[in-house]
Amino acid sequence: MKRIAIDMDEVMADFTKKHLALFNADYNEAITLEDLQGKKLRDLRPHLVDEIREYLKDPTYFRDLDVMKDAQEVIKELSESFEIYIATAAMHFPSSFTAKYEWLQEHFPFLDDQHFVFCGDKSVIKADYLIDDNVYQLERFTGEGILFTAPHNIHEDRFIRVNSWANVRDYFLK
Amino acid sequence: MKRIAIDMDEVMADFTKKHLALFNADYNEAITLEDLQGKKLRDLRPHLVDEIREYLKDPTYFRDLDVMKDAQEVIKELSESFEIYIATAAMHFPSSFTAKYEWLQEHFPFLDDQHFVFCGDKSVIKADYLIDDNVYQLERFTGEGILFTAPHNIHEDRFIRVNSWANVRDYFLK
Repeated sequence: MKRIAIDMDEVMADFTKKHLALFNADYNEAITLEDLQGKKLRDLRPHLVDEIREYLKDPTYFRDLDVMKDAQEVIKELSESFEIYIATAAMHFPSSFTAKYEWLQEHFPFLDDQHFVFCGDKSVIKADYLIDDNVYQLERFTGEGILFTAPHNIHEDRFIRVNSWANVRDYFLK
Repeated sequence: MKRIAIDMDEVMADFTKKHLALFNADYNEAITLEDLQGKKLRDLRPHLVDEIREYLKDPTYFRDLDVMKDAQEVIKELSESFEIYIATAAMHFPSSFTAKYEWLQEHFPFLDDQHFVFCGDKSVIKADYLIDDNVYQLERFTGEGILFTAPHNIHEDRFIRVNSWANVRDYFLK
């Protein structure tokens, strides 16, 4: 059985929506996803890079993120034909460990927690595929990297791209 | 540069000494490391399996374990010739994440936290070597498994064995 490793933030979990909502509320801004095309929030507001990062140090930040559309159904379907591992870069925010674990247990109860990997650099992940929005990780991964579209990565063209979980289904199951 | 993945409990951290001390104190016992040759504590006291496991759910349990003799010096030396990753099976005790992270930062400040991996099944670890006391993990690992001697594994003979960090130094650096 081939193995698919799946990133969490911006792939399974809607990280950006919450981040943007908190930032806009606190700084009286109205930045949209459109404004983030090809960039990160810190690129738009470089003088607030520490403040932008600060939200993520809250141990509960990752606990209530929305699930990305169709992620549950498609990952459930994939789990019938592939070994599913979750590979999340958690070491930049060690306080996020528990929230990420509980979020996975709540929204993906059919996954085996022995297949959860909280890591840093994903070159250490042994899998056939990695679905990730982060080009840095796909560059290091030694299997086939699949880029999940996020605003910041729209100009990237070195990897197979999927725009949605429906796309992921088509790629692996059609 | 070749990559060595290293397990934490009973390899870097003296897990058993603390576990045994707590158990002996609470149950008025005098179980020694000698008694554990070829077994785990739960095999010796099967009617207390839940209680034996309960200690590990304390979020601070893993925070103050002693460092195994020579582990710091030898891992520092290895890090000059090998990529070092730490691969710990943390998913059975998710409350241990923070304590394990802080323990590594305290005792191994020269290691890169982007090379820490908190996982379940270590078949997902891509490395050339895995130093581990757990035969279950070495069976699954796809590189070269190196068994670090612990009381429970003394009858195992399928893997290269090291009895100490001095032995690890000899194996990799001589």
